[in-house]
Amino acid sequence: MASTPEDDLRAFQFERVLNQDTGRKTLNLLGSINGQPAIITAEKTAFNADRAPALVSPEGLPSLHLLQKNDIYHWFMGTLQQSADAAAAVKVNLIYPCTDVHIKKYSAQKPHMVVETPEVYARYVSRYIAEKVAGGRLNWVYNILEHRSESEKIVYEDEDKLTGFILLPDLKWDLVTMTSLYLSVIVHRTDIRSIRDLNASHLAFLRSMRDRVLSATSDRYAIASDELKVYVHYQPSYYHFHLHVVHVAHDMGSSAAVGKAILLDEVIQTLEVMQRVQAAGGTEIGYKDLEITYLVGEEHDLWRRVFEPLKQGLEPTI
Amino acid sequence: MASTPEDDLRAFQFERVLNQDTGRKTLNLLGSINGQPAIITAEKTAFNADRAPALVSPEGLPSLHLLQKNDIYHWFMGTLQQSADAAAAVKVNLIYPCTDVHIKKYSAQKPHMVVETPEVYARYVSRYIAEKVAGGRLNWVYNILEHRSESEKIVYEDEDKLTGFILLPDLKWDLVTMTSLYLSVIVHRTDIRSIRDLNASHLAFLRSMRDRVLSATSDRYAIASDELKVYVHYQPSYYHFHLHVVHVAHDMGSSAAVGKAILLDEVIQTLEVMQRVQAAGGTEIGYKDLEITYLVGEEHDLWRRVFEPLKQGLEPTI
Repeated sequence: MASTPEDDLRAFQFERVLNQDTGRKTLNLLGSINGQPAIITAEKTAFNADRAPALVSPEGLPSLHLLQKNDIYHWFMGTLQQSADAAAAVKVNLIYPCTDVHIKKYSAQKPHMVVETPEVYARYVSRYIAEKVAGGRLNWVYNILEHRSESEKIVYEDEDKLTGFILLPDLKWDLVTMTSLYLSVIVHRTDIRSIRDLNASHLAFLRSMRDRVLSATSDRYAIASDELKVYVHYQPSYYHFHLHVVHVAHDMGSSAAVGKAILLDEVIQTLEVMQRVQAAGGTEIGYKDLEITYLVGEEHDLWRRVFEPLKQGLEPTI
Repeated sequence: MASTPEDDLRAFQFERVLNQDTGRKTLNLLGSINGQPAIITAEKTAFNADRAPALVSPEGLPSLHLLQKNDIYHWFMGTLQQSADAAAAVKVNLIYPCTDVHIKKYSAQKPHMVVETPEVYARYVSRYIAEKVAGGRLNWVYNILEHRSESEKIVYEDEDKLTGFILLPDLKWDLVTMTSLYLSVIVHRTDIRSIRDLNASHLAFLRSMRDRVLSATSDRYAIASDELKVYVHYQPSYYHFHLHVVHVAHDMGSSAAVGKAILLDEVIQTLEVMQRVQAAGGTEIGYKDLEITYLVGEEHDLWRRVFEPLKQGLEPTI
């Protein structure tokens, strides 16, 4: 009698994983059925937004436990009741209480490509950054640097206040799936708000940090250093210098795309060319002297207060 | 008595959905807890590839039913047993029997991050590029430039043999969906194989091309130029200088990610710093003098013939 498609699928003999996309939650498998080659692709289902109002109710989220808490940020694992027989494991993050900045950051936003000239940076963006580091907004970073939170998770630390840094898993990583490995590097020095503060004098610091981050991550997770991507963001989400360390197979979407991410190696190369300008007797230049082109969402303060007014020929409101 | 983080989350009063990404299976919600604003972000977990061998076993996939079948293609819905209390709804596709073409299409090329030094470029990669432009491999490009093919699709052309270029839709674009707009710019001059051939002498050419590409695309498709992302690839897929013009909202995955894509504006900025070296009386430098770090798949000739041998301390086979 003829086998049903379900019978065929059940008869699948696994051979190897062809591909995995941890960003999109897909998995491609090669195997055989009755001696013939077969491919299975599996994909987690998207959230049903209709159920959003009851998402965290006891019915919607039967099981729930806290993984980590730092200031207003909470990380949970839970199981989402999708249907009578499906309760998917989900990562649930809570920001409470949150600010308008958080709301903008997590809202759908139309992106705009902007060109930040050295003048626009000096006159407006640097002032915006000064606002963003005031009033305890970086306390959660200092909690980490001073071992008041997440200290048990530190993978590597150099405690030197000038050349030191902390390497620890990003809370977006489940700590298990190597192809979605995601670590952060937070420097101890507090004088670098973003790449705009970098110049040739930082070359030795950046090179040594790059090498130690790669070897520490490679040693700790038994992963070759040529499977790691190290980059910075401009604009970053917070203005204390930090690096992102991600598995090369991890699709980070716009977070690793040009217009947002810049490879640390590329920053170092640019600084080396700037160093040649000085070596040739030219004036000292740094990232503050570059035109930087990047994407900014239309809910972002920099768009609404700086770049949208400039586009309309108006004075920025900052 | 103080409430636990779990209590806080349970007390979340839903207000509205801030954002949903059905591709990445994330959901961002705004609400309030004890009268204070709060944001919840939920994300489905990635597959645990360790469980792949048992993915479709009765234990791994307790429930399963066929949605549709067409020849060798089958679509199922099922529930994946992730743990004792989590069984996620998953879409499962089966291709049976499949061919080698299917296998290639669904396979990951394990990427490696490589550092191409000026020496490695001069000694090996430049020779690889010479192979890739030999024997009529670029005839399809010359057919476009000489109007022997796709001439009806040209959006904008400057026929000057030195400063000219052709702007036309990429075959991957459906020509309809503006948020997935994707055009290519192919230059008329044949002396630039990749960014490695660029130096400060090309600045005027690149600046003028950038401006005309943005205005031509913006005019033709009634789209603001700040919604366009213009970048090059290194390594490119063919060695005749070309640009990619993409809508900022289009998720291009690895094709727009650092380690593969470089913004044209960034190339121009780097060349301007190089120009300052010369202006200061330093030696002339160009992209041929940089260390360039990028991702290369392990099936790529450059990995197999150059970077894998070098990693093993062997002589490249090129």
